[in-house]
Amino acid sequence: MALLRVTIWNEFFHEIEDPIARGHYPQGIHEQLRQALAADDLEIRTAWLEKDAEHGLSEEVLSQTDVLLWWGHCRHGDVRDDVADRVVDYVNRGMGFIPLHSAHRSKPFRRLMGTSCMLRWRADEDRGDRCIVWNVNPNHPITQGVPLHFTLEQEEMYGELFFIPQPEELVFLSWFEGGNVFRGGCTFTRGIGKIFYFHPGHEMFPSYYNENVLRVIANAIRWAAPPEARELNAGRYMDPVV
Amino acid sequence: MALLRVTIWNEFFHEIEDPIARGHYPQGIHEQLRQALAADDLEIRTAWLEKDAEHGLSEEVLSQTDVLLWWGHCRHGDVRDDVADRVVDYVNRGMGFIPLHSAHRSKPFRRLMGTSCMLRWRADEDRGDRCIVWNVNPNHPITQGVPLHFTLEQEEMYGELFFIPQPEELVFLSWFEGGNVFRGGCTFTRGIGKIFYFHPGHEMFPSYYNENVLRVIANAIRWAAPPEARELNAGRYMDPVV
Amino acid sequence: MALLRVTIWNEFFHEIEDPIARGHYPQGIHEQLRQALAADDLEIRTAWLEKDAEHGLSEEVLSQTDVLLWWGHCRHGDVRDDVADRVVDYVNRGMGFIPLHSAHRSKPFRRLMGTSCMLRWRADEDRGDRCIVWNVNPNHPITQGVPLHFTLEQEEMYGELFFIPQPEELVFLSWFEGGNVFRGGCTFTRGIGKIFYFHPGHEMFPSYYNENVLRVIANAIRWAAPPEARELNAGRYMDPVV
Amino acid sequence: MALLRVTIWNEFFHEIEDPIARGHYPQGIHEQLRQALAADDLEIRTAWLEKDAEHGLSEEVLSQTDVLLWWGHCRHGDVRDDVADRVVDYVNRGMGFIPLHSAHRSKPFRRLMGTSCMLRWRADEDRGDRCIVWNVNPNHPITQGVPLHFTLEQEEMYGELFFIPQPEELVFLSWFEGGNVFRGGCTFTRGIGKIFYFHPGHEMFPSYYNENVLRVIANAIRWAAPPEARELNAGRYMDPVV
Repeated sequence: MALLRVTIWNEFFHEIEDPIARGHYPQGIHEQLRQALAADDLEIRTAWLEKDAEHGLSEEVLSQTDVLLWWGHCRHGDVRDDVADRVVDYVNRGMGFIPLHSAHRSKPFRRLMGTSCMLRWRADEDRGDRCIVWNVNPNHPITQGVPLHFTLEQEEMYGELFFIPQPEELVFLSWFEGGNVFRGGCTFTRGIGKIFYFHPGHEMFPSYYNENVLRVIANAIRWAAPPEARELNAGRYMDPVV
Repeated sequence: MALLRVTIWNEFFHEIEDPIARGHYPQGIHEQLRQALAADDLEIRTAWLEKDAEHGLSEEVLSQTDVLLWWGHCRHGDVRDDVADRVVDYVNRGMGFIPLHSAHRSKPFRRLMGTSCMLRWRADEDRGDRCIVWNVNPNHPITQGVPLHFTLEQEEMYGELFFIPQPEELVFLSWFEGGNVFRGGCTFTRGIGKIFYFHPGHEMFPSYYNENVLRVIANAIRWAAPPEARELNAGRYMDPVV
Repeated sequence: MALLRVTIWNEFFHEIEDPIARGHYPQGIHEQLRQALAADDLEIRTAWLEKDAEHGLSEEVLSQTDVLLWWGHCRHGDVRDDVADRVVDYVNRGMGFIPLHSAHRSKPFRRLMGTSCMLRWRADEDRGDRCIVWNVNPNHPITQGVPLHFTLEQEEMYGELFFIPQPEELVFLSWFEGGNVFRGGCTFTRGIGKIFYFHPGHEMFPSYYNENVLRVIANAIRWAAPPEARELNAGRYMDPVV
Repeated sequence: MALLRVTIWNEFFHEIEDPIARGHYPQGIHEQLRQALAADDLEIRTAWLEKDAEHGLSEEVLSQTDVLLWWGHCRHGDVRDDVADRVVDYVNRGMGFIPLHSAHRSKPFRRLMGTSCMLRWRADEDRGDRCIVWNVNPNHPITQGVPLHFTLEQEEMYGELFFIPQPEELVFLSWFEGGNVFRGGCTFTRGIGKIFYFHPGHEMFPSYYNENVLRVIANAIRWAAPPEARELNAGRYMDPVV
């Protein structure tokens, strides 16, 4: 069986600039995810904002990517428009896309959703909120092996109202001790590409070491991988005659 | 304009048997709702489990009902099967249906959903949980005039996993101080009838005096009212020829 | 890997009574499907209305069934209510369910949907309609290997309005030469069980020899099979405390 | 009651350049729609591609528009990007949006959907296809007064596969004599704005004189009009504290 080709993209800014983030992820969030997600059926590469002029997301890279993970936070505006549009195009042609945490405001996700993707948040960098992630879709491929709820002792509060289109499937709902709820795990389809947004992963807390968070992401990679439909060329749909 | 004909159905058991429930609702939950929802465009009647042999839900009553509210808790099993099936049939033919609180386990709702409608709950009759109801659908007719969140200081915890089919629209998500979340306001269509489930209303707490809860129910009545489609006779759809 | 346990249930009436149906399916529709779907990862058994007092669907059989196919037409009323409820219960607990053709009016499907499941049809037993099945969900597991459209030269017209709840996923839309359209391939979830309704298969035409129809059903079996969630006992969800 | 402010936008190119289109719509499609939709509760203005440097869609116009209709076909590329983005922004803030016919490929619709919005079509300008529009949502506000099916003797074939996200509600399905089906009436929400796509209206045929087509559009205008949520300023959702 062919390996599934995964590209993990990271802004890779906080882990350089901020000592707390660097403490959690000394080589960057992308590197922690790469190591934690390593598996026999995956071929994982990484890319980041300043890797090269195209942020490591050239046509060549994307054409060899089955599933793209995306983490970004404060430098969304520095991503080139043409690269963001390239990602949108590849998703529509079948590439899986997994925006994590503050990637809710990334250019590719917003362009795929057609909305602002704004939400409530609570900036308490020292403490965060205790967060309980509720699995509301226990027969979904993404929740296999994941308990009906699990706790993150510290996570940034992301809450409703979340300006996304109605998700196709609601997979996780998160509870925050400060009084908020959040549709924190949602699926969408765009073109023939699958999308899964998942909220944990603030750079100030070690969520990407949590076994349940990692299990969810690992499951989502397999779920988002294009089936043979991936081979379809959008062009053939243009044939106007039955 | 013709008045909208509303029937409020109540089990009417706790308010007789239990002093706390009776304290909140001395004439029954149905009577409090009747008074609080009174409006110029509505003609409201009430019915209850022991009103008559058909629980006050004869063919005559249902044939003159545009929207049926349903509150029941511990005596679901005492509702006659034929009456439950009659309600299911009227909903399919266009009658709006608004199951409240523990009506999630009522016979009509379960038969309309096709699932167990089980959920988590926390039985703390003295105190309940503080509950924050989040409006996640601010352009929906049911949320007009309702703030983006409101608090019920005491409410019975109803939480995920809630065994319902995927709602057509998620309108409210509730947060409970004990750590739970709940899809507490959801819409469904069955046949040409509209359904809105809404969770507040444990008999031990005064939720049906809360202005936001009442506003939601009042909005839901207008939303669930059958449009002219109500006039359609299911029979005409049987015509096998274009 | 454990084999997937499939039970094919058939009314098995027309193939005995009607010479044309018998001509297509001399041993019954169930037997044709059993042979055509045979594969190394499946363990297939069959059952039918008059197999035994429980229509071959005892507790023992269902407890050993991962996916149940159901074909019925004119004897829905002869299925025992308790057996229909048993099927509904097993679906809610995770058994996949694939109602075929006129099983849209079967007791288990109607009880799972909560609607009449009525539709338009055209009874032209000699000729039927030419039918083109359009794949509108090319990245869905059920459509893998299935072209974007395929034709059945003769099939019974099933058309809108189809009284089902809004499907979670629309997989196929069918076109009929007489002027009708039909949501002929739809998915639903009830409890933790997956359901796929698929319309081809009138007993007077040989649709269950069509390679695309068979591919769809074969894919649907794998899609509907319960993941490890199947092991979950509904009871554990009842724990009222986080 | 305040009037509903409607802006009808038209590319207004074919009706100038092409004698057949001009024959049907001598003053432009926008003018035909303006006259046919006139009603006491509406205040209708029109705008078109070359009306002014901003295509008649300045901030001032959009800030006074409750519902925007959009017809465009071969000059989508001539719409300024900033104007398209302005429309997307207003929709997210609550303006109703009704893209008609080939507006499926307009910049605002594609940006709101996040997909290519490509589809199959059949270019037979002399004849078109006979088209039967099936109402599959008879209790929806958009279908009130609309029969369960109606026929357009000549319409351009638009068929599946239509690359849109899964609609929130499927309202109409269209049948074409050449063998195609189409999800031709669909709703979406983006931000707090409602969207209804409706396919009839090729410039070579007189669909905008059809009473059912006009009834659908008239209903859609009222449905898409922002409720009081329209008053909400996106900014208030940014408050990070409960």
